[in-house]
Amino acid sequence: MREVAVLGIGQTKFGELWDRSFREIGIEAGLEALVDAKLSSADLGALYLGNMASGTLLDQEHIAPLILDYAGLAGRHLPAMRVEGGGASGALALHQGYLAVASGLYDFVVVGGAEKLTDVPDSAAAGITSSAADHEWEVVFGATLPGLWALIARRHMHLFGTTREDLARVAVHDHEMGSRNPNAHYRNRISLEQVVGASPVAEPLGMLDCAPLSDGAAAVVLGPLDVARRHTDTPIRIAASQVATDTMALQHRDDLTTLASTVVAGRRAFEQARRAPKDVRVAEIHDAYTISALLALEDLGFAEKGRAGPDFASGRFGLRGDLTVNPSGGLKAQGRPFGAVGVAQVVEIVRQLRGEAKDRQVPGATLGLAHDVGGTGATSVVHLLERVP
Amino acid sequence: MREVAVLGIGQTKFGELWDRSFREIGIEAGLEALVDAKLSSADLGALYLGNMASGTLLDQEHIAPLILDYAGLAGRHLPAMRVEGGGASGALALHQGYLAVASGLYDFVVVGGAEKLTDVPDSAAAGITSSAADHEWEVVFGATLPGLWALIARRHMHLFGTTREDLARVAVHDHEMGSRNPNAHYRNRISLEQVVGASPVAEPLGMLDCAPLSDGAAAVVLGPLDVARRHTDTPIRIAASQVATDTMALQHRDDLTTLASTVVAGRRAFEQARRAPKDVRVAEIHDAYTISALLALEDLGFAEKGRAGPDFASGRFGLRGDLTVNPSGGLKAQGRPFGAVGVAQVVEIVRQLRGEAKDRQVPGATLGLAHDVGGTGATSVVHLLERVP
Repeated sequence: MREVAVLGIGQTKFGELWDRSFREIGIEAGLEALVDAKLSSADLGALYLGNMASGTLLDQEHIAPLILDYAGLAGRHLPAMRVEGGGASGALALHQGYLAVASGLYDFVVVGGAEKLTDVPDSAAAGITSSAADHEWEVVFGATLPGLWALIARRHMHLFGTTREDLARVAVHDHEMGSRNPNAHYRNRISLEQVVGASPVAEPLGMLDCAPLSDGAAAVVLGPLDVARRHTDTPIRIAASQVATDTMALQHRDDLTTLASTVVAGRRAFEQARRAPKDVRVAEIHDAYTISALLALEDLGFAEKGRAGPDFASGRFGLRGDLTVNPSGGLKAQGRPFGAVGVAQVVEIVRQLRGEAKDRQVPGATLGLAHDVGGTGATSVVHLLERVP
Repeated sequence: MREVAVLGIGQTKFGELWDRSFREIGIEAGLEALVDAKLSSADLGALYLGNMASGTLLDQEHIAPLILDYAGLAGRHLPAMRVEGGGASGALALHQGYLAVASGLYDFVVVGGAEKLTDVPDSAAAGITSSAADHEWEVVFGATLPGLWALIARRHMHLFGTTREDLARVAVHDHEMGSRNPNAHYRNRISLEQVVGASPVAEPLGMLDCAPLSDGAAAVVLGPLDVARRHTDTPIRIAASQVATDTMALQHRDDLTTLASTVVAGRRAFEQARRAPKDVRVAEIHDAYTISALLALEDLGFAEKGRAGPDFASGRFGLRGDLTVNPSGGLKAQGRPFGAVGVAQVVEIVRQLRGEAKDRQVPGATLGLAHDVGGTGATSVVHLLERVP
């Protein structure tokens, strides 16, 4: 398989975009990525689109050709398809796009992620979040996605002494980073006291431990690494693209405090790239709930099991730490348009590796990681991205 | 890219399977295909799953890891994802599975398609059909999928003199073939008079011009052609796998009586396989509505534009014709579990090329075609399959 690079990136603002439709935000991100890659639509080979909820919330399936159509590209009759895996849909679409270029089938593909979650009834949006959990064995008995992550948090606190404040620090950090990101849904800083004192959602998780539902879209253009210099001064190589799955229901796992899918996807990714966790300088990790981020840091090998909370408190994962986590603000502050998240994570890593991240720039980053999760970890996807010297 | 073969096939009965859940039928088809391919689950590399409506109808997204989980395979942490493109979801999943093996990333993959459409409120199921059309420009104005296909039929009748009976003959043929298929949703023969006299759905299409909504699942195991003989005495090579798209809304097309996506996907497929329409002896084509089949025959090059109706009347497309169409009974009689359809078409073609189709066996078939469509043709997928001498 040939080497693949990210040649262009695009992203809409994340947030409550009530004045713009699903198709509009999808096109905005895709065209921005094409322009950034110095490509015209005539060069495109295919479109892969990550999305979770357009069928349920917008009564619209079959959205990949829809986006091409409204971008004025229907006459090219390009291959296009949607990829879905709960909140990991965007990263799964990227995996497919990577494979399509690596195989030699297409030279240039757009991978997009788009989701409209805010201008729909609240009850519908709440239900859609839990549709990534096991409907027959969890949801019908009253479990919600935040409720399931709260069980994980309780168990982590019990086994490892993780504190309420350890959880809260993730949200404080994310909002600090989000305040520096013009695309972020939330740009306000928040204090530890605010997070701990917020209304409970599913204890120990409160309102400020949970990422919002957002509208938003993101896109990348992928192409063969060997022609990347024609399109960008700073090609970013996809050093690894790995997917792993696990049981849908929490009750079927041996250990509630680790996501086996993340452990396996991370291990496969480091093997593929022949690198180790210590080589990574910047990472976008799944933080739909604050506990999600602590698990990710441990499961990806960035912290010892049970130690992510204290490590977070030490500043290791801040902007000037060994490993900067979620410089975009993460799902918590940048926002959580399900299918767009996995693509937006890679957009942020590319910005960081190019040195274009302005006042949230991580100094000296050459290897970055993106980690996306569906549900409570039935799917995890890990990408490693590297700046080509 | 390396050559890919179908090593195993599996399929549930199609119909109203009220006693079995979505996950049960998905597993049944997948395990049957694995056993048929003489593979154990330890050999598997990944799962690609075609499905359209589980989110809307079952409140369950994120279904690819769910199926692995309930097959007892969660501990393998295999890559798994859902692929969606309206009614073409199954064929798109097959395209992705083909690509995954062709690229060398995985040796053996299962491609499944599964859908549960009958034990849900009728109103929900009717809505889901139209969610493959353009919601903002067609559906909100009252257009339904059968209504849109009826427009196509009217135009075809106006331009080419296609008759009501020309349409009806497709359904009569499909039910004749379905009567020979133990997996078919409908196994009753019907007469021309019954089709023409059935209650109107969207004129000129009546109840018996429209494929039913069905439950069902189908699966194939794909692997490298060069090791195929270890798994089967009759390896079936995937000679082409091509996807093309078009506008979502009918109103944006130059011509209502041709699906440009089918024309392009078909042309690309014959180019990839270096074969021509005349080489094909058996084809499973999209016949969600009787008019769909006539368009497919013309757009794939099996009939001159406007002549598919008379050609059908001549017997050319019957079991003893030049080209046998829909020996399974097609969507009309075998059934229409959206995401399973594209995979089931390939399962039937493989049966035919292996010579295992019993009293619906097409004599001497060595090259077969499968053609799947989403909505009114915003997506078409064409596969060519060939028996290896």
